[in-house]
This record gives sequence, C-alpha cells and structure tokens, in this order.
Amino acid sequence: MIAILPDQQVAYCGEAGAYAEQALMRVFGENTPKLAVSSFPGIFDAVLQGTACAGVVPVENSLTGSIHENYDLFLRYPGAVIVGEYKLRIVHCLIANQGADMESIRTIRSHPQGFAQCREFLEKHPDWPLEPATTTATAVTSVARDKALSIAAIAGEVAAKIHNLKVLREGIETNPQNYTRFAIISRRTGGTAPALSGSFKPNKASLVLSIPDKPGSLVECLRILSEKGINLSKLESRPLVGRPWEYLFYVDVNIPGEEGIFDSAIAELKTKTLNFYFLGSYEASL
Amino acid sequence: MIAILPDQQVAYCGEAGAYAEQALMRVFGENTPKLAVSSFPGIFDAVLQGTACAGVVPVENSLTGSIHENYDLFLRYPGAVIVGEYKLRIVHCLIANQGADMESIRTIRSHPQGFAQCREFLEKHPDWPLEPATTTATAVTSVARDKALSIAAIAGEVAAKIHNLKVLREGIETNPQNYTRFAIISRRTGGTAPALSGSFKPNKASLVLSIPDKPGSLVECLRILSEKGINLSKLESRPLVGRPWEYLFYVDVNIPGEEGIFDSAIAELKTKTLNFYFLGSYEASL
Repeated sequence: MIAILPDQQVAYCGEAGAYAEQALMRVFGENTPKLAVSSFPGIFDAVLQGTACAGVVPVENSLTGSIHENYDLFLRYPGAVIVGEYKLRIVHCLIANQGADMESIRTIRSHPQGFAQCREFLEKHPDWPLEPATTTATAVTSVARDKALSIAAIAGEVAAKIHNLKVLREGIETNPQNYTRFAIISRRTGGTAPALSGSFKPNKASLVLSIPDKPGSLVECLRILSEKGINLSKLESRPLVGRPWEYLFYVDVNIPGEEGIFDSAIAELKTKTLNFYFLGSYEASL
Repeated sequence: MIAILPDQQVAYCGEAGAYAEQALMRVFGENTPKLAVSSFPGIFDAVLQGTACAGVVPVENSLTGSIHENYDLFLRYPGAVIVGEYKLRIVHCLIANQGADMESIRTIRSHPQGFAQCREFLEKHPDWPLEPATTTATAVTSVARDKALSIAAIAGEVAAKIHNLKVLREGIETNPQNYTRFAIISRRTGGTAPALSGSFKPNKASLVLSIPDKPGSLVECLRILSEKGINLSKLESRPLVGRPWEYLFYVDVNIPGEEGIFDSAIAELKTKTLNFYFLGSYEASL
C-alpha cells in the first residue's frame, strides 16, 4: 500500500463504484480522499496541476489488450511518472435492490462490455432484456435510484456496497482470467520524492522506445537486455499510423538486484534507439 | 477484393450498419450475402460448420490495442485460417432523421466507446444528454425508429445509409488515427483452396508462438528472422494469466519475394519454440 500526505487526494476516471476506484482503494487504502474525473487526460491534468498527488490509469486488460490511448498520454504528459502498478481481477456481480431475488429479475443493465464478458451467464436467461449503460457503475446507480425489484446491474462488488444493494450472483464472467492493470502515476520531480511514501523497492520498469527501421535493430536492443540477465515482462510493438515501418515499442523489464547493472543497460540501450522514454520504475504487482 | 462462390455468405459479428459489416463489404463487395452473428465465437462456428465460407474478425484497434479474446479464438479453433486482412478507418458521424439539423438535436445515442472517442466534439455541446446503446448500429436503429428530430446517433456512415438517415457531421472523432484491423478467416483445408477466389499473393503471415523461459530465447528467434531479411510488422507478448513468466508472442512478418527463404525461416523458428501456430498467410492491407 502507498501512503499519501494529509490533505492530498488521488485521481481516477469514472464514478464511485467503478473498477478504477476499487484499484485506487486497494493501493492507497479505503479512506483515501478520491477525485473522480471524467476522462483519462483529466487524471494527468489533476496530477500535474497538483489537484491530486497521484492517479490511477488503466493501461491494459488481459482480454482486450493494451490501452494505446493511455500509453499515448504518457508521451503527451512527460511530467508524469509511473510509481506503482496494480493488477485488479475483474469480478462481475449481478447486483439488485434489497428484497430482489433471481426470480424477481426481468431486466439487466450494464456497460456493453459487461454484457459481452458475461455472455455465457446471460445466455441461460435469454428472456432478460439488456439495457446498456455508460459504465458499470452508472448501471448500479440507476438500479438503486429506480428501487424496482425487477432490475439488476452487472458491475463490481464495490458498487453494490456503495448503494447498499444486494449481490445476487458473484463471478458471473465467462472468462475468469480477466484482470485490468493500472499504472499509479505521480509528478516527475527532479530527485525529490513525490508526495507519496511507502516502502518503494523498484523491481520493474516501463520504457517506450523507437528504433531505426533496419533488420536486426530490435534484436540488438533485446540482446543488450538479455546479456545482462534482464527479463522482459512485456514487449509490444505499436505501429505509428500514417508512418508505415515506424514503430514504438512498449517494454516492461525487471530490475536486477545487483547495483548498477540496470543503469548501464539503460545507458547502452539509449545509444541504439531513436527515441527513448523512461516511464518509471516501481514495485511489480503480483 | 476477394470473390466468393454463388450461394455462399460471409459472417460478421453485429448487426446491419456495424463497422464490421462495412469492412466485410469493402473486402467482398457491397452485394455479398452476409450472415450476422451475435458473438465472436459465432463467426468461427459459422465458418467451420460451413454456414459461411468466410468471416470477418476484428483483431486490433489503433487506440485500444490487440483484441486478445479474438486471438484466443484462433488457438481454440485451429480449423480456421487467416486468408486476408483489412484495415478500416473508423470515421464517426453524427446521424439524425431527415429534417433534423444541428439546432434541433437535444440527445445523443451511441456505444460508450463512441462517446469516449468523440469527447472533444461532445464537450462543445455540454447540454446534450448522452444515452448509451449496445452498439453504434443499434443507436442508429433506435433513432430511425423514434423518428424524432431531437435525437442523433454517433456511428459509421453505412448505418445512416441503411436507414436513409442524414449525416449531420462527419469525422467527429477526436483522434483521426483510429482504425480497426480485421482478419478475414476461412476454413483450413488440406491443400485445396477454400471457397474463395481472387488474386492471392501472400506477402504477410501471422504467427503465434511460445518460447522457453530463459534469457535470450526471444533474441534467438528474432535473429533467425532478421538474418533472412524478414521484417516484423507486429510483435506483442501476451502474458499467460496464472502462469507467471510464460508468454505467447503474436508475430506478423513480411514474406520475402525470393522463393524458399520464408519456409526455411519458419522451419528453423519451429525448432526454437515450445508452441508454434501458423495463423495464415495473406496479402497485407494498406
């Protein structure tokens, strides 16, 4: 868990009950003051303007892949740095008002992605109409507001707690290997620590780099890492639209325990790349 | 364009007016018989059971990343093979009933992703309530059904044509570099061509492979390709959830013109991998 200073708050995108808020509370604690913003750039703005001391940004989902839009924000906001990560297992629940049960339910509300991820469960109830909502959290809010025993929402458990609603079924997602990885961001400061404390022992780093367009240039970069015993936990090419044959690479690596090895690998890597962005080093989430 | 035999149809997921249908028509022609199914596995079922001779499967979006769920389907349905690809530029339009204009609009409907991708446009109209829909195509259907001049939908142009609606604004997405890449799939047949024709000159291939967990094993695989002058157009690691340090790699490569080089590289690559899946070879989309 990361501690923050008094009078500080942490930004996330969405509303109370969102999966991002759940990740925030797991990392910073249940009672952390929270700032809900309405867009991903809004998280970066809040952190860089000092309205929030940290932010929680989803960067990839195990079913739907890396969120390129948010990686782009790291390049657009170079003042932000990754100081942590959290992998949140997405457990979808069927949530209804107190007094409702499986027999009383007639209609289901959720984000379309929630419906898609619970397809096998929903196929057992083909007579339930599905009403789309903007987010899973807004679906729960609308069920609470309507008070009817015939409506249920698909969302995370936290959303049920907030509105004192009932969880009728838990874990109704088709694929249980569904998690979202959040990057914890803060302001990049020249040497001084951000307004965060905790036992930081970085064992993982995130990089974005581009390389010359010639055969073997990627191999050369990876060889620098492998020769120093640095493992990759993520490697992804991102084509630059409109510029064929140009690629960005997202690279996550482990930081070896032995002093100096990582720094010298990074220094060597920089000489082989066209562009090199160090997004941050942090403790890996299990 | 790929031609299909008479009495055959092509499967896609969604409904008339969906972006997937748009991609289908660009590849196979406007008048191709189409089979709309309600899930991605449904496309593979239709193709393997012979209900459809081909299918159109989204595999990545330039903003939201690779669709891991659909890559998984290639491993689950080894009888399917990629025979083509199509990159569809996603152009969101503001669509309303005939007689409506910008002044008459009061409410907007779309998939939540449609709202998110048109955020800057929508911020100029903060008084418009946003009503979520299951897909962009259903949003348009509901606008056509309601007939009101006060409701508009955000969706692709084709959806407007189908319902004879009016495009009030075109290209309202914030980021114009928004495209979805579709894989064209067919049945894998032992040597005989599937029920498709056209001038196939494969210059690109898609592979999925897993490698031993030791430093340098990826470097070794990539060296085999680079030494033969084979370029990567996509390289992505996919962590296997629940199995730390095990990864699948998605690899797209170009096929060199010179006979035999590609086949010998693949043969050598297979000796270095734990698992190797050849998803197909095809003509690259521009």
